[in-house]
Amino acid sequence: MSEFKNVNIVKQANIYFDGKVNSRTIVFADGSKKTLGFMLPGEYTFNTVDPELMEILAGELDVLLPGSDWQAVAAGESFNVPGNAAFSMKVKTASDYCCSFLK
Amino acid sequence: MSEFKNVNIVKQANIYFDGKVNSRTIVFADGSKKTLGFMLPGEYTFNTVDPELMEILAGELDVLLPGSDWQAVAAGESFNVPGNAAFSMKVKTASDYCCSFLK
Repeated sequence: MSEFKNVNIVKQANIYFDGKVNSRTIVFADGSKKTLGFMLPGEYTFNTVDPELMEILAGELDVLLPGSDWQAVAAGESFNVPGNAAFSMKVKTASDYCCSFLK
Repeated sequence: MSEFKNVNIVKQANIYFDGKVNSRTIVFADGSKKTLGFMLPGEYTFNTVDPELMEILAGELDVLLPGSDWQAVAAGESFNVPGNAAFSMKVKTASDYCCSFLK
């Protein structure tokens, strides 16, 4: 089972959309951050500050990235979101994800 | 903001009740474990192996512990569950929790 080792984790959840999206923030020794998050079925739009790498660990969704059409993403796949952008997801089945904040 | 420091965290979520309850497993240097979890409104029954300390970080719920009546629990409160037992929760508002597995 894959683990992140020797990290700090913020105890309180990040809560979005009445909790239908929730995540935990992990801080690595080098100061970099990821969130491990979970999304119930629904449609969600998020705004980025830093560019993000979204890895889908479980579930199925469609994503709308800037300048693209809707595309299907499944467990084991990932996508990049530019910084200072908006992106939308239609989550079809409950989805587990890891979001890395890139600099 | 409260953090757990120098811990390992399992990347994949633990998923229960179609994802309406989801959690992440944290392993401490001494081998002890906690889960940080999130529950959407609903009614859930869980079974314990080890005794558990459940701290409610956000939200409101009622809990039914072995040998007790339903009791209300709110953010900032906690309850203990014996090992090898079943307990039920009626989650009224999306609830963030920290579960410590005791030995």
